[in-house]
Amino acid sequence: MPKLDLSQIPFQGGSGYPGKLAEAGAGRFVQRLGDAGGLTQYGVNMVRLEPGGLSSLRHYHMEQDEFAIVIGGTCTLIDDQGEHQMQPGDCATFPAGEANGHHLINTTDAPTTFLVVGTRTPTETGYYSDIDMMVKQDATGSAFTRKDGSPLTADQIGDTNE
Amino acid sequence: MPKLDLSQIPFQGGSGYPGKLAEAGAGRFVQRLGDAGGLTQYGVNMVRLEPGGLSSLRHYHMEQDEFAIVIGGTCTLIDDQGEHQMQPGDCATFPAGEANGHHLINTTDAPTTFLVVGTRTPTETGYYSDIDMMVKQDATGSAFTRKDGSPLTADQIGDTNE
Repeated sequence: MPKLDLSQIPFQGGSGYPGKLAEAGAGRFVQRLGDAGGLTQYGVNMVRLEPGGLSSLRHYHMEQDEFAIVIGGTCTLIDDQGEHQMQPGDCATFPAGEANGHHLINTTDAPTTFLVVGTRTPTETGYYSDIDMMVKQDATGSAFTRKDGSPLTADQIGDTNE
Repeated sequence: MPKLDLSQIPFQGGSGYPGKLAEAGAGRFVQRLGDAGGLTQYGVNMVRLEPGGLSSLRHYHMEQDEFAIVIGGTCTLIDDQGEHQMQPGDCATFPAGEANGHHLINTTDAPTTFLVVGTRTPTETGYYSDIDMMVKQDATGSAFTRKDGSPLTADQIGDTNE
């Protein structure tokens, strides 16, 4: 039925980032609402950030619109313009192709929850703002490389642009 | 910037329904968040229902996924299975092509707000469950007809299937 039974949709941890970058996902737990309800055209996730948690490494999408609304607690949106405090009800939009790397971080001592929506597209390219990494996604999965397309190596992961 | 200035995005009333059916939109006000933030791949609207208000006439979409989450107040989801109470945080999904007519109504004496997401597609067909009406949408706009494609007339609008 259309109304979701939220008690049956777990918050899941984990990260798809390669190597030590996966540590960035340590304080992040995702409840996949859209998937649970049979939606395929966009993803809808409730995300809980524990204190110190990050929504993602700071990034932007080339092909996918992204929307977020804070549901509970306080978090900080960081983008190319700086830091922006986000309270419950505050919203942010990240249009596809807009090269403004962003993420949400929880610098408080209580959990934050936000709802995030992202289009599902056949292919996608994402760029990470603070490290030399990009991701290409297609039906076969995700491939992380340096921004020139060369492979990440253990010593490269975590390199900054500086 | 990505964070929306909600004070600058008005809640707008009005209805696109033909004839006397437009009265169904009397208690509904929509804040177009996605449009304000430059999103094009899906719509994101905050909807306020005053007491007695309806989200829409009961309908389903053939091509567009729809998602809703209650933000404030209490409302009632009505679909083919009956009535479902919706509290803040409760979510519902309506996958494209699933022939389960639905809407949200506010039977309380206080406003309800919910966030709703719907895919933007080049074309769309929607069917109304309680009256003999369908809508086809494309780049030129929306066309409401009876379900057999014949024109609505003044005496037909509001006809039930019974």
